[in-house]
Parts: sequence; C-alpha cells; structure tokens
Amino acid sequence: MENSPVYSSIRIPSEEYATRCEALLHHLQDHGCTGVVIFDTYYILYYTGFAFIPTERPVAFLMNSKGEKALFVPRLEVEHASSNALVEQVFHYIEYPYTSHPMQMLSEFMLDMGIRPPFCADQDGYPRIQGYRGPKLGELTGASPLQVAAFIEDCMMVKSTAELALIRESIRWGNLAHTLLQRYTRVGASETQVSQRASMEAVLAMLDAIGPLYRANAPSSESLIAGYRGQIGRNAAIPHALAANITFQPGDVLVTGAGVPVWGYNSELERTMIIGSASDAQKEMFEHMLALQDIAFKAIQPGVPCSQVDLQVRGYYEAHQLMPYWKHHVGHAIGLRDHEGPFLDMGDHTVIRPGMVFTVEPGLYLPELGGFRHSDTVVVTEDGIEVLTYYPRDLASLTLPL
Amino acid sequence: MENSPVYSSIRIPSEEYATRCEALLHHLQDHGCTGVVIFDTYYILYYTGFAFIPTERPVAFLMNSKGEKALFVPRLEVEHASSNALVEQVFHYIEYPYTSHPMQMLSEFMLDMGIRPPFCADQDGYPRIQGYRGPKLGELTGASPLQVAAFIEDCMMVKSTAELALIRESIRWGNLAHTLLQRYTRVGASETQVSQRASMEAVLAMLDAIGPLYRANAPSSESLIAGYRGQIGRNAAIPHALAANITFQPGDVLVTGAGVPVWGYNSELERTMIIGSASDAQKEMFEHMLALQDIAFKAIQPGVPCSQVDLQVRGYYEAHQLMPYWKHHVGHAIGLRDHEGPFLDMGDHTVIRPGMVFTVEPGLYLPELGGFRHSDTVVVTEDGIEVLTYYPRDLASLTLPL
Repeated sequence: MENSPVYSSIRIPSEEYATRCEALLHHLQDHGCTGVVIFDTYYILYYTGFAFIPTERPVAFLMNSKGEKALFVPRLEVEHASSNALVEQVFHYIEYPYTSHPMQMLSEFMLDMGIRPPFCADQDGYPRIQGYRGPKLGELTGASPLQVAAFIEDCMMVKSTAELALIRESIRWGNLAHTLLQRYTRVGASETQVSQRASMEAVLAMLDAIGPLYRANAPSSESLIAGYRGQIGRNAAIPHALAANITFQPGDVLVTGAGVPVWGYNSELERTMIIGSASDAQKEMFEHMLALQDIAFKAIQPGVPCSQVDLQVRGYYEAHQLMPYWKHHVGHAIGLRDHEGPFLDMGDHTVIRPGMVFTVEPGLYLPELGGFRHSDTVVVTEDGIEVLTYYPRDLASLTLPL
Repeated sequence: MENSPVYSSIRIPSEEYATRCEALLHHLQDHGCTGVVIFDTYYILYYTGFAFIPTERPVAFLMNSKGEKALFVPRLEVEHASSNALVEQVFHYIEYPYTSHPMQMLSEFMLDMGIRPPFCADQDGYPRIQGYRGPKLGELTGASPLQVAAFIEDCMMVKSTAELALIRESIRWGNLAHTLLQRYTRVGASETQVSQRASMEAVLAMLDAIGPLYRANAPSSESLIAGYRGQIGRNAAIPHALAANITFQPGDVLVTGAGVPVWGYNSELERTMIIGSASDAQKEMFEHMLALQDIAFKAIQPGVPCSQVDLQVRGYYEAHQLMPYWKHHVGHAIGLRDHEGPFLDMGDHTVIRPGMVFTVEPGLYLPELGGFRHSDTVVVTEDGIEVLTYYPRDLASLTLPL
C-alpha cells in the first residue's frame, strides 16, 4: 500500500486530536495532577475520535501525566475501539455487571498508569446510563477527583478550521433535506410521510455525493433527518413537541428542523413555514421573529458577553409587548453535541470569542396562531458573525401553495 | 362531547399510572420520607406518562407524602407538560442558565409541597445532560436524599398486561420492518438505501394501520428503524458498530436490528442473515448460536437467578471451545428503556419473576467469519417463557439469494 495515492479527507486530522490532548495534559500538569479520567461520551469523542453507543457498560478515556493515553472498554467494544480510537492502549473488562465490578478494574488500570490522587475527572464515576450503578472514583481511590469538565467545555467552545469545515458540510446536507421537506409538504400529506421521504432522498443523495468521505461518527442520531417534531398548526406553539403524524391543513404554521452529523459535528437549520397565505396576525409575528433574529445577529460580537445578546433581544420582546409569547433564550453553542455551552442567555456571562458557533433562534409562541422560530447556525468572526446556514428566511419563500 | 363514543386505545390507562404512584408513595411513607424528587427522563415517563426531549434544562417529578404530584419544567415545556403529564400541578422556571439557577427554584417548590429532609430522590441533582451544571439537592436542602432508584427499577422490571400489549404491538411493526429489510437486501445495494427504504415503508404502513392509536412517546428515537449499524461482512464481528454505508457483497454475514417505540415501550428483534450459501464454518457458528439461544430460552424460569442463565449459556461456550468468540452476556431487560436491568449476566443475582421481559441474544464473533447473533424478546410466564418475537430464526429462512 506504500505507493497508494493520498486521498482527500474531510475528517479532523490526527494532529488536531494530539493538540487537544496536549492542552489537557498541560492543564493536568498545571494542577499537579497525576492524570485524568473521562467518562462523557462526547468528551471521549473529542479527545480520541472514537464514537460509540453509550450503554450501561462503562467506557472511559485515561491519560497520565506523561501523556500516555488509554481507553477502557467492555470486551464488546475492544475491536471497535482499537481500530478507531487515537490512544496507545485499549484496556478491557469482561462485562457489566459481571462478578467483579468494571470500576474496580478501572481503578487498577489507573494505578498501572500511575493515575492516583490528586487526579482529574469529568465526573466522579460513570453516569447512570440505562440503569448502570456503580461506585464513585472517590470511593475507589480514596479521594474525590478534581473537576475538569469546565476546562474541557471551554476548549470545545472555540472551533478549529477543520471543525468548521465539518459544520459547513453538515449544513449543506441539512439544506438539501430541508429543500425536499418544503417541496413535499402539501395539504393532505402527513408529517411522517413527508419527513421520511425528504430524509431518505437527502441521505441517499448525500452518500452518493460524499459517501467515501463521510461518517456520521455520532453517539446518538446517526442519520440525516428533516421533520417537524409535531410542531404543526396549533401544536407549533409547543417548542419541543414530539412527532404525532399530523396531516397538513391550510393555514398551518409549521416549525421545521433539518440536520445531520458529519464526523460527529452538528448544525441546526429550522424554519417557520405557512401553508397558504399568512393571516395579518401571522405576518406580524413572522416579521417580529425576523426582527428578533436580526437583533441577535448584530449583537453577537467578539468580546461581548453572551448575556448581552439575550438582553438586547429581550429588549425587543419587551418594547413590543411580546413577552407573553416568549418561551426560551436566544440560542446555544453547537458542535459535537447538538446543545453545548455557552448559551445565549441572560444568565451566561461567557465572553464571545471568534470561532464559537451558535444557533440563533429566538421564538414567538401563540396558542391560537402557532409557533414562529427560525434557527440559523452562525460562527463568530474577528468582527461579527458569518451566518453559515443559507436557507431563505423571508415569508414569501416560506409560504407553501395550497 | 359528552355523548361521543368511547374509542379503543392502546396506551397505558391512567389508573395504572395512579397505581405506580401509590406504590412509590407507600415506599416514601415506609421510609419516613416527606416526598420524592425524580430527574430521570424514563422514570418521569413511568410515573406521569410525559415524554419529552431531555436537554440541559432540568425537568423533575415531585410527589409529597400526601401523594400530591407535580412536574417542574422550563417555560418551554409548560403547555406540553400540562397537556400530557398526569400530575396535579406544573411548576415552571424561566430558563437555564438564567440569572437564578433553576435548582434554586426547585428547592423552593419542594418546600411549598412540604418536601424537606428526609426525602427521596433518584439522583442527587439533575444529571449532566448537554453541558448542564448545577448544585446538588443535598447542597440546597442541607441533607443528601435517600436513594430511590433501586426501588423504581424494581417496580419497572415486572410488566403489566397493558405494558406487554404495547411491547407486542412494537414487535408486530418491528417484524414488518425486518421483513422489508430482508426483502430489499441484495448484492450491490447499500445498507443505507435498504435500511431507509424498509424503515420508511414500515412506518407509513404502521401509521396507516394504527395511526389514530399510536404515539412513539419516547424520549429518544421517535421512529421505526430497521438496519444493520454497519454490522456487515467482516464488520459484523464488531457488536456495536455504527453505520458506515457498506455495499452488500456475496458471502456477507449481516447482523440486523428492527424496532419501534409504542407509547414509549420497546422491543428488540435482531437476526443473522447470510448473502448466498453459508460456508461450512459459517453454518457451524450459526448452529452454535441457535443452540446457545435455546439453552437460554430453557434456562429462563421464574425463581431462577439471572446469573444462572448466563452461567448455563457460558457452559455451552466452554464445552465447545467457543469462549474466544464470546463478547457479552446473554441479554438484558427491556421496556421504556431499550436496555434495562436486570441483566442475564453471571454477576446479576436478581431472581426472575413472571412478567419480566428480556432480550435473549448470546453472540459469537469471529474476525474472519463475521458476527452471529439473534436477539429475541421474551416474557417470563408462570412456568417458563413466551417468545414474543416470531420472526424466522433458521438458517434457510435467513439465507438471501445471490
């Protein structure tokens, strides 16, 4: 294979994983820690490139103060981890619950690697996933670990060029799925029918286009999905409704969503669409919603605290007596997780930095009229933002024929 | 509406939710607790019927020692919770993170309801979902809660007639999806193509058949899905592989999966299929796999500890020199969660009781040959089991034409 050509790739280069681990290593050293233990599925993906389905079987990433990296997995995941995770060693235990608890074995591997108090961890033991129960690291090692989650979240907040490329790639195919979703949405069709057809056609087109370069590599949703989550007609006033297979009717206000993980990275595209001509009241709310989003677009600037963006947007709600229709903050960061911190929320004082990626999605929800929310994904630049999602956002473009 | 006829329904009757809450109430009273706080999404669904998408915004179910029930939700979920949760009150906070932490407000609502130490909780604070951070209940109330998760898991283990009916309904549509998956799988097609087509046709048929009666009502996957998760050909030796859009080739050993949540309840159907005639080595492993499953079917009996089932099955692995191909225990319970305790694992000594529902899925994994695993869903009866999944399991039925 030594003479095979180098093929193009869109995944995060291994050097970038090394850089991430080095930053974590410096953090350990600065805090006098002998190592770190990480249980969070997304953090493990961030440091090792290994995506897996989290279950009741604990998985952990370990690094000692020499920078030696290992993954701790059940027997079930050994080959999967060995061929995908950027670590020097894959330790494994037999099974959970088994006759000796996996965490007991983890504490032995930690000692083998020289990880003993004081050490860091993202949480004091494996979380309660699918009924998992087990001892805390503190109980096993004699001392509670130092918290490292805030440091990791801080690192993940600012996206690299490679990460942004994956988010842009995600947006491209979300845009296709949304275009099909809009095209097939018509009176009499059901949400499931339209959502399934649009999603299927989009994912097949995506794989025909970039299949050899593409992996979802995501712990949760694996596929391109466009849909409504039941946010149709009067139901649209419930922001996080679940799909209920509603049939489209004239006058329905729809809130959509489309997205796909690309090597683990997510984007968000949501639009408000109306079947048939919008009523005056609907037009008014739609225009207010656009105005709210415009305020947020302008407010997001490097150096500004996240809270400022939410406060400015809330100023518009208040000035126009729209607070009765307010239900949530302006948006959230997005990346390996579909919701990440920081939040564009009056209580989050994190200072905005170039490379941060946010959803911008202030909404208006009226029991009689429906829900009005666009969500766009934006990246912070040196002097403002670039709106990464490019789907039309004006009412005319989003009005469906009867 | 008072003269409207009573329509048939397949959901859990509200009396059953009341019975569940009463059992929890007795537990509180027996332990001298003033109330209970529950954060787990599935436990909340179990006690209130309310399914929602868990995010960084805390949600909690509260019940005091008088049996008064309340849900604590963000502003975003108020209408959704009010129209779906079987509780007397829906308390809400504004947003997360916001200027005052939601957990602060939760502790005030707890006091209003008379819930103060000693009280029970399923965990000492809202879990770390999507970057959530916040104080523990112990810090807010001055005393750590008594653990109630084991009691709840114990209640959830034994399924009622209504729960079994939903699991049977789930199996029916999983069977349809799997039939289509098998029908469309052929050399040259890609896993995504086949999986998407089978899933879409099955979900549309399901909704045409039972749409007015059906809701997924599940916190995670909302739709009927049949697929391979990349367990194709040599990849089939990796039990929890993720989909990679592999194209089918002659001789591929496939491990499939099909299932759908029905009012929150899940089933599991997995089959090993071979494209073209199985080799002698493949036939041998397939027959061993069936024999392993048969041993488990016979071993599952009321009064027997779960560990016994795993030990008997392991006895067969050992007697036939199959341990090098072993990767995981025999199975797990299933219901509102797709993996629940107890586990058919040598370390789980829970005694099997009538009404428990298990997956039975011992597997064999060979790097060169592929993975061999069927998963069937069974319910424990008074004197053995009923195998609920009825998809053919013999090699001839699962051999695909070239």
